[in-house]
This record gives sequence, C-alpha cells and structure tokens, in this order.
Amino acid sequence: MRPVAVIGIGKTPFGAFPDRGLRSLAVEAGEKCLKNGQTAPSQVDAFFLGNFAGPSFAGQNHLAPYISTALGIQGVPATRIEAACASSGSAFFHAFTGVASGVYDIVLVVGVEKMTSQPTPRVTEILAGAGDCSGEVKAGSTFASLFAMIARRHMHEFGTTRQHLAAVAVKNHANGALNPDAQMRKVITMEQAMACKPIADPLNLYDCSLISDGAAAVLLAPAERAGEFTDKPVRVMGIAQASDFVALDQKPDITTFPAVRLASEKAYRMAGIAPADVQLAELHDCFTIAEIIALEDLGFVERGQGGPYTLEGHTARTGGLPINTSGGLKSKGHPVGATGAAQICDLVMQMRCEAGDRQVPRHSVGLAENLGGSGASCVVTILGTV
Amino acid sequence: MRPVAVIGIGKTPFGAFPDRGLRSLAVEAGEKCLKNGQTAPSQVDAFFLGNFAGPSFAGQNHLAPYISTALGIQGVPATRIEAACASSGSAFFHAFTGVASGVYDIVLVVGVEKMTSQPTPRVTEILAGAGDCSGEVKAGSTFASLFAMIARRHMHEFGTTRQHLAAVAVKNHANGALNPDAQMRKVITMEQAMACKPIADPLNLYDCSLISDGAAAVLLAPAERAGEFTDKPVRVMGIAQASDFVALDQKPDITTFPAVRLASEKAYRMAGIAPADVQLAELHDCFTIAEIIALEDLGFVERGQGGPYTLEGHTARTGGLPINTSGGLKSKGHPVGATGAAQICDLVMQMRCEAGDRQVPRHSVGLAENLGGSGASCVVTILGTV
Repeated sequence: MRPVAVIGIGKTPFGAFPDRGLRSLAVEAGEKCLKNGQTAPSQVDAFFLGNFAGPSFAGQNHLAPYISTALGIQGVPATRIEAACASSGSAFFHAFTGVASGVYDIVLVVGVEKMTSQPTPRVTEILAGAGDCSGEVKAGSTFASLFAMIARRHMHEFGTTRQHLAAVAVKNHANGALNPDAQMRKVITMEQAMACKPIADPLNLYDCSLISDGAAAVLLAPAERAGEFTDKPVRVMGIAQASDFVALDQKPDITTFPAVRLASEKAYRMAGIAPADVQLAELHDCFTIAEIIALEDLGFVERGQGGPYTLEGHTARTGGLPINTSGGLKSKGHPVGATGAAQICDLVMQMRCEAGDRQVPRHSVGLAENLGGSGASCVVTILGTV
Repeated sequence: MRPVAVIGIGKTPFGAFPDRGLRSLAVEAGEKCLKNGQTAPSQVDAFFLGNFAGPSFAGQNHLAPYISTALGIQGVPATRIEAACASSGSAFFHAFTGVASGVYDIVLVVGVEKMTSQPTPRVTEILAGAGDCSGEVKAGSTFASLFAMIARRHMHEFGTTRQHLAAVAVKNHANGALNPDAQMRKVITMEQAMACKPIADPLNLYDCSLISDGAAAVLLAPAERAGEFTDKPVRVMGIAQASDFVALDQKPDITTFPAVRLASEKAYRMAGIAPADVQLAELHDCFTIAEIIALEDLGFVERGQGGPYTLEGHTARTGGLPINTSGGLKSKGHPVGATGAAQICDLVMQMRCEAGDRQVPRHSVGLAENLGGSGASCVVTILGTV
C-alpha cells in the first residue's frame, strides 16, 4: 500500500435550491474539485459517486455515469456507492483503497443528495430506508425517534442531560454562522436550544440536522505525485470502513456504535496515532446525541463523558479539540450522500489554513467520522499534514 | 496485482416468489456460496452487494449491512454498489480489485433484486431510472423502446432482420429449458418467436428479458490460497469496468456500445488472450438485439454479423461459441442486481463441469458481459481454468 494524498476539494453551498437538480449540484462540486486539483477530466482514472437515495429523492438512478459523463469523464470505471448517510465516506474509502493499492492514480469522489424537492413527510420516509423497514420502520420509527431512544438510554446510563445535547447544537450553530457555505448561518443561545419545539422526546428541533441539497468532491492521488497537482497536499494517514446491524433492536447496547469503535481503532492503527493526537474533527452530528456518542466511541473521552466534555467547551473552536468547525450536519446542512465527502473538504480547508473566520490554530491531524443509519455503516478517516 | 480465484458460488432459482423478501433471497445465495467455498462468515474480509433498486422495488435501502449481518458477517466493510443492470458485475469488479491488490483475502459478492412485488407498470418506471429520466424517459421512453430504436437502427445499418432477433430468443429458451434454476423453462419455435405480440416495434414479447426475483453470490480469494477452500478453483484472467453516456441521444452511434468495447479490450489485454480464445460466454441479453451487438462489440464477429452468426447456429450449445448456456436474461430471468453475479456462477458451473444437461465440452475460457442501462456501464470478466 502506497501513501495517498488529497490533491483537490470542491463543494457547493448546502441549502434548499429549488432551481437546481442533482446533476447540476454534483457537476459544480466536481468541476470545482478538478480545478482545485489542477486536473483535467481526461486524467481521472476512476470515478466514485456517493449517493443515498437519488432514485427516491430525484427520480434518477444509475447515477455514476450520469454524473461522470457530465463532468467530461468517460470510459473509466464510474461506480455509485450507497451506504446510507455514509455513502460518500464509503466512496472515499474505496477510492483511497484503489489509489493506495496502485490500481488507479487519480480518482475523483463526488457525494451528492438533492432532498428538498420532496415534501418533509416523504423525506422522512425515504430516510427511514436506512433503518430496518420490515421491523422498526414498520412499527412507526423515524430516524429522529431512533436517536431519541438512543439519547434517552444514554441519559439513563450516564446522566447525560438536555443541557448537554443543547450544548452541541449551540456550538455547531456558532461555527456554522461563520461558514459562508452553511445552510443555517444562525447563532442560537442555550435558552433557545433548550426551549425549542419537541420532535421526538428528548430531542427537539435544534437537536436534529437539516434537510439539504448539496454536493462535495475530493480528488485523490498517490502522495509521490501530489506535487504535480497542488502545493498543499494533505495525507490520508489512516482510514477504515466498518459495519454492524441495521436494526437498533439487534444491538446489545444502543449507547455505543461498534462500527465507529472498530473503524476508528483500525484507522488509528494505520495512522500510527492515538486519539489524543487528533487536533480537530468533523463528526457525524445527524442528531446532537450522535456527536456526544462519537466523542466517546472515538476514544476522545470516556463513556458517558461526551456531554460534560462538550458543555465544558473543550469541543468549541477555541477549545482543546475543536469539533465540527464547519457547523456540522446540524448547521452546515446534511445532504446525506454528500456529507462524508464534505467532511473531508472541511478538514482539508482547515489543514490548508483556508477556513476563514472559523480557522483553528492547531490543524495538523484531523479526523472525520461518517455514520450510516443508526450505526450500521461507519467510515473513519484521519488526515495529516505532518 | 496478484492472481485471484473464484472459490465459491451460490444462487437461488430465478422466478416470481411472492412469499420471499429481498433479504431472504440474498441470504440464501450467500449461504450457499459460503458453503460451496467452505468458508465461515467470520473469514470474510469484505462484503460487496450489487443491487439496482431495492429501495424502489422492496422499500429497503442501506442494503449491504442489512444483508451481510443476516449472513453472520459483521464488522468488515459492507458496501452496496449500484450500476443499473451491471450492479453485481461492478460489485464483482471491485471485489476482484480488492483481492488482487492485496487489500483483502476473502471477499463475498452478492447480487440481488426483488422485482415482482411491484405491478408491471411500476417495474417499467423503476427500470427507466437506469436511463436519463430528465430527457429520454420524460419524453416517454421505456427500456424496451430504447432497445427498439437500437434494433431498428441496427437493421437499417446492417440488414439485421426479425429472424435474427428471434434466433437469439429461440436459442436462449432452448438453453433455459435445461436449466433447473431458470424462470421460463420453455422451448419456443422460430414461428412462435416471430409471431408473438409486439412490445416496441421491432421487438416483441420474446425479444425481452423477464421480470424476476433472485440472488446470486460469488466468493473470491487469492489464487495461491484457493486450494484451502476448493479443489475446483476458477481463475479471474481479466476484468474491466467501463462507462459511457446514460442518454442514448448523446451517443454518436447507437448500434455499438463503446463501454463494452473498452471493457473487453482491457479484459482481453489483462488475460493475454484474443476474442477467438474464448470458448463460451454469458452475454447481457436484456433484449435480443443486445446479444447480437455484444457479439460484435466483444470482437467475436465483425459489425453487422451478430444476427447471421446467431441464425447459423454458431452460438448454440452445440456451436463453436456457445452463448448463454444458462438461458440468459431471456429465459433464466433477469433480477437486475443479481444478473452480473449469476453470469459468473453460470460460467463457473460450466468450467467445473457442473452444468448438467446444458454442459458444453469446451469450457476452459469463459467470458461474462454485464451491461448497465443502454450501455452506460459495462463489466467484462474473463474466467479460465487454463
């Protein structure tokens, strides 16, 4: 396995864009990324698309060649990967594997989702397809209700409070307000976060990520060739994908995600680092409780300490371990198939000192955690400039 | 890149199974395959699922961990690949790449589709998602009509006739009648094939593949380890995936599929063989015209000669180049996400001399061609026992 570098990134803003289609968004991100990596479409050896539910949201399937050819990329393997909300994290993982093993040199990853053209109840129904439709969904579960059960159990086991959850929302909105590409650039107070209307008890509106349109893209190359394309390459130090049961009721403990633990252990080992070496991270805050559990599963804090750690400010931009400086899924937006690739883009922006008002001073080692469903898929990526 | 072998295969029958769900079919194929390859679920290093439209056909997304965990495969990367009707061919391609490059040792590929629970007009609509929905589909095209245009143009350019198309159907039904796992085990005469009711002129009912439920699975390992699992390993001599435009109107010539030509050229080069070295093949006869064009694009005959070659009997079981001894998509059935993996299974059965009444005498080098949409995705695989 040879060293691999990110040589280009590209993103659309995240938001609701009634006049933009799925392909238009994906092409914008892909073109920005190729330009950023000073690469022509004809130089791309393989194309991976991360997309969760294009057929249901946007009425189009067979999406990889549909998008690659619109980018001027022809002939090469063009493959769509679906792993629920970890679709483009998984696409990035397989792209990395292809470059690291020497099968390809230049690989473009695009993640995209176009969600807002469907009414909200239908969006909820489509998202529920990432859970067990014959069991938990048939019984009435939505993803908000699944994560509400997770939150309730975490409260019961560890004394996590509503205030801890709200602290995640307040922090991520503070970050997102500084991100010009974020969907909800709105600072919220602890009082607002605590008092907002309930969605699925104990989660309220500010505990839930957004319904979004958007795309993000990442370009990979062998590290030894990175200098041909950029003077700011970022190394993929470690990466792993792991899997687990889809249905929550099959898991012995719903306050931890084994796939996150397994993927991160593998990624740390590959990178040769410990959790304490990570300087910033983009975590999958589909719901506030998910960020708290991720802090624990990734080994940043002991089990049960994710809430207090957040409330004490350690994960703020000015804290010891800034989490979701992009605003996270909570404020930046969560076009599900784009989220994994966008996390990589946001880390790379920090590592290149291109993060503007939300730039953090320590940015040599960054981690992205991209979760699918209620933990059945997870990709953990560790990037470094060291 | 190290040599890779198929060490196990497993299939369900293809047909309409109203009492079987998508997961049940996939698990049956996967379990048969693991048993056939004498492999425990805990030995599998990665899982690839080929599925085109599970969310639309069966109401379930996030299918890779949904199926892998039901097979007892946990923790490892579990990834769904969607490439229209080439979904499990592409899954097989990426699985091969992972083993060949040394990333994984044992990889399980499962392809599955559960189509018959939807009414036929809805099936047609879902399948249309493999074409350009904003263009050709919006204008009223179905896949039958797209391939009807292709057939009409092929007739115009090369003098291909209705009789040539019918000869493909008659041959594939004759083969399928001998396949206990085929959906339509029915011999048809040339008269029946010529006179059947029209679907999209010049294609009639017997020119169209079937709407099917079914699953197929393939287990891969490094060739040097194959002996641990089977005494009948089959080598992957060459494989490639290629892409092209999704919309037919973007193609300069609709009587040839550039993705098939490109993928086969790469696969032949990798295998170090010429088309004349291939002894049998499973081709993607989603419509009879597709088999005729595949014969040409794969270099078995000159352009325009696919029809006459078939009518002369060269592609019959008793001919010089037996094509679709399984019955093909035409008679065996076409659960789209399962088809690519099933083609590999059917070739391996011939190469192991396990094909029963349809066994052919020359079976050392076999080729599978798995097409997505109207040619936007293609995977060509060459297997050998030499």
